[in-house]
Formats: sequence, structure tokens, C-alpha cells
Amino acid sequence: MAIILDGKKLRDKILDDLKNKVAVLAGTPKLVVISVGDDAASKIYVNNKKKYAEKIGIAAEIVEYPQSVSQEVLLKEIAILNNDPKVTAILVQLPLPEHIDKLEILTAIAPGKDVDGFTPYNSGLLFSGAKPYAYPATPRGILRLLDEYNIELDGKHVVVVGRSNIVGKPLAQMMLNRNATVTVCHSHTKNLADITKTADILVSAAGGKIIEDNMIKSNCVVVDVGIFRDEQGKLRGDVNFETVSKIASHITPVPGGVGPMTIASLMLNIVDLFENSGKS
Amino acid sequence: MAIILDGKKLRDKILDDLKNKVAVLAGTPKLVVISVGDDAASKIYVNNKKKYAEKIGIAAEIVEYPQSVSQEVLLKEIAILNNDPKVTAILVQLPLPEHIDKLEILTAIAPGKDVDGFTPYNSGLLFSGAKPYAYPATPRGILRLLDEYNIELDGKHVVVVGRSNIVGKPLAQMMLNRNATVTVCHSHTKNLADITKTADILVSAAGGKIIEDNMIKSNCVVVDVGIFRDEQGKLRGDVNFETVSKIASHITPVPGGVGPMTIASLMLNIVDLFENSGKS
Repeated sequence: MAIILDGKKLRDKILDDLKNKVAVLAGTPKLVVISVGDDAASKIYVNNKKKYAEKIGIAAEIVEYPQSVSQEVLLKEIAILNNDPKVTAILVQLPLPEHIDKLEILTAIAPGKDVDGFTPYNSGLLFSGAKPYAYPATPRGILRLLDEYNIELDGKHVVVVGRSNIVGKPLAQMMLNRNATVTVCHSHTKNLADITKTADILVSAAGGKIIEDNMIKSNCVVVDVGIFRDEQGKLRGDVNFETVSKIASHITPVPGGVGPMTIASLMLNIVDLFENSGKS
Repeated sequence: MAIILDGKKLRDKILDDLKNKVAVLAGTPKLVVISVGDDAASKIYVNNKKKYAEKIGIAAEIVEYPQSVSQEVLLKEIAILNNDPKVTAILVQLPLPEHIDKLEILTAIAPGKDVDGFTPYNSGLLFSGAKPYAYPATPRGILRLLDEYNIELDGKHVVVVGRSNIVGKPLAQMMLNRNATVTVCHSHTKNLADITKTADILVSAAGGKIIEDNMIKSNCVVVDVGIFRDEQGKLRGDVNFETVSKIASHITPVPGGVGPMTIASLMLNIVDLFENSGKS
């Protein structure tokens, strides 16, 4: 039976440490989340971010706009936040409505306040092997969790299923920077199982794709980024936990694996941005 | 026997087309190359770029600085070129001396004049799947060459050996954008041959690593980015051409494969920058 990579336990440990750290900072870091529209899932995520921030002493504000908001209004809001010395971190909750130019919005965020690390400038630094102001939270959380369990990355073959800007691509880059051999698979990949079977570490961020036990080699480390409700209303991930956990060496549960690490990483990012802003 | 991917022939065709195109532009595109120090290889590359630019009607200037040049002087030079409306494209020839902060220098180039596509902003656009002002020349040249021979990328497994910012990483990204499954190998990769044998398309940009015929599957497409002189003074690449060409479906020669395509792509980039600058 695989060792469970316990993201919840590690999140709590990281948040405890951060709470102590924030208490002695020469000022209060502040997160502002821009939330557009009424998507129920987005509302839950946004409120969750605020709740955890406040729990550890970070000020948090949610700025809400209707689904019909214009590009200009959002750009103006970001400009104000960029110039507000009280604001440490700006997060634009995705997805944005179709009529909004997402790239222009993300580009407008000052790189030093870009807590998600999604601006082209920060992406470009990551891509070049340089240090961005912030690393995307989910990949950062995954690496931190693997490190906690002393899972070596150097020379390992990491297979990432999914190529989003939020998880797959930045994670692949960060794994490369840690000297892993990296394969990125996605919806156009043929014979997926042939490739996943060669993985020392398999990360599934495919949004519902089922990874079965016959798709991995024994003693593979399995990280499950998927999270959705099945027909019975039960939360589950991309991986068939029951069968895969019998042959994997380590596995993340859903819930309680990558999700909590994403929140912990977001909080680490806010404190990093605060410390790098020269205000601490 | 493999089909030879003839980069020299395609370069000449591209340059002929560009010459005709440049002749009718409403102005003359201008390339400025900043060259630091006395490295003999760099001098050859720089002069080559100038020669090809002038051949097709692009103005070209080489600005030379001694090895001891300061960061401040280079930044000032770049600022002047950024603001000079006559300058279309700025290229800082790499490598730079150790005492120079390369990232700061590259970051200083205006993205709209960044002909190599190496600024963090342009890298970030590429990484995010958006359109940068310019794509790095070698990867662009490789894709153009594969397209010329109607080699399908969608769903293919592309293995890239090498993870440089100049070739391996941007090429991996561009291959992902074309829906290939992509693996990046490098000096820390274990059992390299096990991975290269799974490639539909193998790109070697490892700088001297020898790819032998027992490292590929038959009918693999082989692209050789390596170029150096062997002990007999003969130019050769990363791939053992004699043996590999017997089982590959397509292969690039060295010289005459990727090298000429890099020059052609650089010229395409200059003209693209000119057209996007609103001066044409």
C-alpha cells in the first residue's frame, strides 16, 4: 500500500509557520482578489483564499464585478491596485468572461504583485530558469509536498498529463529546473498508457481522465491534481485511488492532497511578495 | 535511406521570397547586433547575420564592445536602440562575459524589437501559448523545415535532447502548441536510449552527444541541431549520420540542415518585427 502524501497536514504546518512569521512582519501583507461574475465554484475558491489569508494575519479583500464588466474597468482597477502601496498581491480569479482579453488583463498586473505568477514577465522568468516573483501555486505546492516526503526529482522521469498554463506547463518547467526528465501529455497524446507506464513520477492534471493501475509501473509516485464530484456527489480526482494506491509507492488523496497545498503555496507567495517589496 | 531535410535549399527559397518582399516595403528594416569581446566563433556568427541581412535588402549594423564593457554601457546602448525609430531589430550576441547580468540585458530590449524572442516578456507569451513578437530562430527554423516536408506533429511523440533557452525549451513549447506529446531530456536523464527509442521525431540539441542508430526506432524523423568540428576538422553534428540515415525516415544533414534554417528564421523575424511596428 502506497504512502499517502498528506497535503492537509503539510498545509496546516505551513500555515502555522506563516502565521508566526506574519505576526512579526513590519506591516500587514494584503491580498486583493478580483472576482468577476457569479460562477458558484469561483465564489467558493475566492472565499476560501480570503478565509485562509485572514486566518494567518494577511489582510484580504474581494473586489466583485458583474459578468458584464468591461475590459477598461478591469484594467483601471488593476492600475489602482498596482499603485496602492498597501496592496501586496493581486489575484484575478479565472476563468474570466469570454469578452474579456485575459492576456491583456494578466499582463497589466505588476510582476511584483502577481501572486499567481501568470503574467508573461513572470512566466518568462520561470521559463528561462530565472526566479520569478511568484511561482504558480499548484506546481509550487506539488514540489513542496514531494520534497516533504524526500522524493528525489533529479534524473527521474516525470510524466505530466495536462498542459494548462496553471498546472501542466509551469510544473513541467519547474521539474526541468530540478533536473527531472519531463514528458507532457494531453488530449492529443496517442497511447497514453505506454507513456504513463514509463513514469517514475506521474502527475495527472487532465480534469477527469482516469488513471488506472494498469497505466503505471509499480512504485511510481502518483500526484492527482484532478478534483470533481462524481454522480454520487463524492469528491474524486483523475486517479482510481483504490487500485492505483496498491502499486504506487506514494499517492496524493483527493481531497486532502494537492488542493490544500495550492492554498498553502498561495499564502507562501503573498508573504514572499511582501518580503520582496522592501516593506518588511 | 532517409529523405534529407534540405535546410540550405529551403533557406535560399525563403531568402528569395524575403528579398522580393523587402523590396516593396515602405521603408528599410534595420538589424543592430551588439557584439561583446573577441570570441572567434561569435564574430563569424555576427558577420554571417549581417551578410544575409544585407543580401536581402535589410540594413545591418554591428556595434562592438570590448570584453571589459560595463553593464551600464550596454544598458544605455540598448535604451538608445529601443528609442531609435530606424532600428527594427536588436540582437545581443551570446554568450556575454561573466561579469554581465545577461537576464537584465535581455530584459532591457523592447519586446517589439526582440528579434531572438529571448526577453522574459516574449518567452512568457510563448510559454502561455500566446503569440510573441518573435519566436526563437532555431526552433522556428526547425518547425518550418518539418512543415516543408509535410511532417505531421499533431499527436506525435517528440523527444528533445537538450534544455537550453535558445533551442530545447522554446522548441518543446512550440511543439506542445502544435499538439505534439513532448519529452525533454538532458544531461541528468537516465537511460537516454530507452526514451529516444520511443520518439516519432527526435531533435538533438545536446552539443556533441552522439545519437547512434540503436537509439532510435525505424522511420523516426531525426533533426540534428549540433554542429562542431571533429578531430579531422570536419563539421559534424550530434547524430551519427551514416548509420542513423539508414533507418530514419527523414534526417537533417550537418552542415546544411538546421543551421541555414536558423539564419532564414532570423531574417523572417526581422521582417515580421518591421511589419508589426506599423512602419510598413
